[in-house]
Amino acid sequence: MNLDFVSDLAVEAKSKVVLVVLDGVGGLPGPEGKTSLEAAKTPNLDDFARRGVSGFHDPVATGITPGSGPAHIGLFGYDPIEMVIGRGVLDTAGTSFEFRAGDLASRLNFATLAADGTVADRRAGRIPDEEGKRVLAKLAAEIKEIDGVEVLWQHVKEYRAAAIFRGKKLDGRLLDSDPQKVGKKPLEVVPAEDEPSPEAIKAAGLANKLIAQAREVLSDEPKANFIMMRGFDVYEPLPNFCELYKWRALAVAAYPMYKGVSKLCGMRVIEEGQSSLEDEFAIAEREFANTDFMFFHVKKTDSAGEDGNFEAKVKVIEHFDALLPRLEALKPEVLLITGDHSTPCSMKAHSWHPVPVCLVADTARVDAVASFGETAFIAGGLGRVHSTELMPLMLAHAGRLRKFGA
Amino acid sequence: MNLDFVSDLAVEAKSKVVLVVLDGVGGLPGPEGKTSLEAAKTPNLDDFARRGVSGFHDPVATGITPGSGPAHIGLFGYDPIEMVIGRGVLDTAGTSFEFRAGDLASRLNFATLAADGTVADRRAGRIPDEEGKRVLAKLAAEIKEIDGVEVLWQHVKEYRAAAIFRGKKLDGRLLDSDPQKVGKKPLEVVPAEDEPSPEAIKAAGLANKLIAQAREVLSDEPKANFIMMRGFDVYEPLPNFCELYKWRALAVAAYPMYKGVSKLCGMRVIEEGQSSLEDEFAIAEREFANTDFMFFHVKKTDSAGEDGNFEAKVKVIEHFDALLPRLEALKPEVLLITGDHSTPCSMKAHSWHPVPVCLVADTARVDAVASFGETAFIAGGLGRVHSTELMPLMLAHAGRLRKFGA
Repeated sequence: MNLDFVSDLAVEAKSKVVLVVLDGVGGLPGPEGKTSLEAAKTPNLDDFARRGVSGFHDPVATGITPGSGPAHIGLFGYDPIEMVIGRGVLDTAGTSFEFRAGDLASRLNFATLAADGTVADRRAGRIPDEEGKRVLAKLAAEIKEIDGVEVLWQHVKEYRAAAIFRGKKLDGRLLDSDPQKVGKKPLEVVPAEDEPSPEAIKAAGLANKLIAQAREVLSDEPKANFIMMRGFDVYEPLPNFCELYKWRALAVAAYPMYKGVSKLCGMRVIEEGQSSLEDEFAIAEREFANTDFMFFHVKKTDSAGEDGNFEAKVKVIEHFDALLPRLEALKPEVLLITGDHSTPCSMKAHSWHPVPVCLVADTARVDAVASFGETAFIAGGLGRVHSTELMPLMLAHAGRLRKFGA
Repeated sequence: MNLDFVSDLAVEAKSKVVLVVLDGVGGLPGPEGKTSLEAAKTPNLDDFARRGVSGFHDPVATGITPGSGPAHIGLFGYDPIEMVIGRGVLDTAGTSFEFRAGDLASRLNFATLAADGTVADRRAGRIPDEEGKRVLAKLAAEIKEIDGVEVLWQHVKEYRAAAIFRGKKLDGRLLDSDPQKVGKKPLEVVPAEDEPSPEAIKAAGLANKLIAQAREVLSDEPKANFIMMRGFDVYEPLPNFCELYKWRALAVAAYPMYKGVSKLCGMRVIEEGQSSLEDEFAIAEREFANTDFMFFHVKKTDSAGEDGNFEAKVKVIEHFDALLPRLEALKPEVLLITGDHSTPCSMKAHSWHPVPVCLVADTARVDAVASFGETAFIAGGLGRVHSTELMPLMLAHAGRLRKFGA
């Protein structure tokens, strides 16, 4: 659906909307033929399904397995195919770094180079945060510009950081310098296209000079004596989520990447640490009065899925279920619970399977579904929609979309 | 779906199609957890569902509440977002007025202006039809052109009429002159855009001159001594429905607006009065032999929904159900019964909820649904489609679409 079309119909209202994303919650049948959602004991989610309307959403398109970026972008109503956020920008957006339109960002790994110039360790022995920050500070002190283009540095986590070129028009369609295997020489950065733009040729030159200069600055480091660049991407701001839908939006998320994507959309983000699900619920309760739209992210359903740990995924779902009444007690006009994509334990990876979704609101056309899970939701009244349709649906149930046409 | 694509595949045939639109028929659970459709005793509709294939359609898009114009445009196969009909044109199209491409139409209210120039009554005491016609005739006799642009007048109902500018290229993106409140001065007509086109500036000037001249002409009227203009819109003809689908189409509708939208599509419209549902059925029977496609409109389901009168909506549905065998007795090859949108009694307004739809034809893949209602239709074989998909579906079941490709 066209973003401008929906935005033109959006009106302010007093109603509140909460979107809960249980990351990677969709699954496949495991032991005893049940998915994690079905195997979990979830009295509160089942009751929720009983009071709501259920169905599925496709995050990008049938058969397409989404990364976390496009999966969330779609839930927020943006076309995930058209509005691509590169990994370089996505990773860094979760830090305190403030992007400007046109910045060329690259993820950066500290690595260990052997005496023969081959990569000995692609993660520089997984140096800890302090170590990563220390060597990044050395780079930042020594390299501030190349060929008149400003260079900015941002630590992300442990051996991971970012380099940002600012001030000249650059093209981010470049290939990574990481050879992906130890014992190989790092690659030169080259444009990805067969007929690259002048801005891509220039950007590749800058990246190669940056790598060479960094090698000199880091030459006396025992572990982090080299950097590898990947995920080049030019930052183009997304249409602002708060302006589009005329509300105050807040993201409650423990992991940097989800804070990052929320920030890129223009949501307010709570920067303080949220080490447990209880922390997130406490923040939701504290911030609810100042928020019209709350994106509430639960990470560990996905982590368990990626680990292939069926029991762990069941436990995370049961943990959320036990806390769900605290969100309901806030009495948002619209509460929607879904995932950003499926992460079946049997696949240990994201997948393309449709994602269960359930919405509770006074105006929901309640269906006969009485338990929260993939099999039950097939009989749901929502049917199967595209992820980008959920945002207009939430707005409608919140009384925040006026009638179209006479 | 692309209109040209479908039209290219359309072929003539002897088959007949009847599309019944129970306006605003979709609902939400009311007393005893049933919608109006579910609470109504509808032996004939239930039997119809048993013999057909059921499901839902979305009139415009998920979450979007449509006005009657876009909702019907979609049912007739036109993209309701792309092909917008403004209220000025829609209202007037229900009269005998014949639009020409490029006409700038405006709705017009007779109003009463107080001596101090403020609006004393926005509807001129709701003057009756004869009175409205009389004062409109005065205007039509005195004001035939302004600045070389022809001015045409059309009475609509009671205190409502239309003014149409013809003969120069004009832009209808103008704001209303109606201040919406009594005690305020009427507004000057100004362009809606920040950077208006020369054609919009010219149109605003014409409108303001028209209002000033009308004030003089009406100065001795006790009630209707002023006009207010709103809903400016330039008429652009829609692709002709009969040519697109290669058939003779007829609209049977009691209310002017539905006659109007049918006329704008190029359907034949029965102008004579249809004061009861029985009248509409009699016309359908009389005209069936000369018709390939019949649009049969039932208004009062929507009126009851807008009034929040659950029992009245049930009654209208039961009334239609009792008469349905008369339509079936005509033996159209395809009979489809749906609504243009939902109008839940609990909301007293149009809504975005998917609209129940059921099709009976020899080629229908009959499902297990055995009652006509929202909950039962979730299990229907049609699933959830877009309103614009129903026209190709009816054509297909009528043997009026040839195979695409070799």
